[in-house]
Amino acid sequence: MSANKRALLVVAHGSRRAASNDEVRKLTEAIAAKAGTRFMMVAPAFLELATPSIPDGIENCIRTGAQEVVVLPYFLSAGRHVAQDIPAEVDIKRQQYPQVPISIAAYLGSDEGVVELMLGLV
Amino acid sequence: MSANKRALLVVAHGSRRAASNDEVRKLTEAIAAKAGTRFMMVAPAFLELATPSIPDGIENCIRTGAQEVVVLPYFLSAGRHVAQDIPAEVDIKRQQYPQVPISIAAYLGSDEGVVELMLGLV
Repeated sequence: MSANKRALLVVAHGSRRAASNDEVRKLTEAIAAKAGTRFMMVAPAFLELATPSIPDGIENCIRTGAQEVVVLPYFLSAGRHVAQDIPAEVDIKRQQYPQVPISIAAYLGSDEGVVELMLGLV
Repeated sequence: MSANKRALLVVAHGSRRAASNDEVRKLTEAIAAKAGTRFMMVAPAFLELATPSIPDGIENCIRTGAQEVVVLPYFLSAGRHVAQDIPAEVDIKRQQYPQVPISIAAYLGSDEGVVELMLGLV
């Protein structure tokens, strides 16, 4: 699989507060800028309360030409959302597009780099 | 103010799921280990659903001898929790201990380093 057929979907919880969803969209743009040519596209999706949904986000990646989708959870803890809800949403599209590998990366909070980032704030 | 009279309080949302709260406690320990002598203590506190609460966490810092408390929000977006709820909880103790400076640091999601961390996961 060449890298430029891979899409990255940054998945956040979603908020009733538009500014919070916009923060996620801006983060996604910053990730896209930094990713260079690693992905053919980088897009946001939301578990709830904002659009696009995770299935719609995946659908958009595939319609844009992605032959592989990597789902990246912008979450801090391995709660129900990360352990159950996101996989359930992803499974909808795995069943619809069995030929497209859709993987789920580790969630942000699992990264040890968070420790250093937190200390950088104080 | 000498650094060793400063306490760091890592504040998370709190979860009904004990394992999520334990993740925050472990993160706090990792921050303490990495902070070296920058703080006299590093402790966790929770906005809701877990203990200690933010006021109780601050109280414990002060009773342990802290003459300054830095509250560090382990949150991804500048929503109501970060903008209103955490400051309101902190204000309770500011009024009770006007001689102890209690500051609130930027929240994790505001750090540009998150972009690189996210890309490191994929």
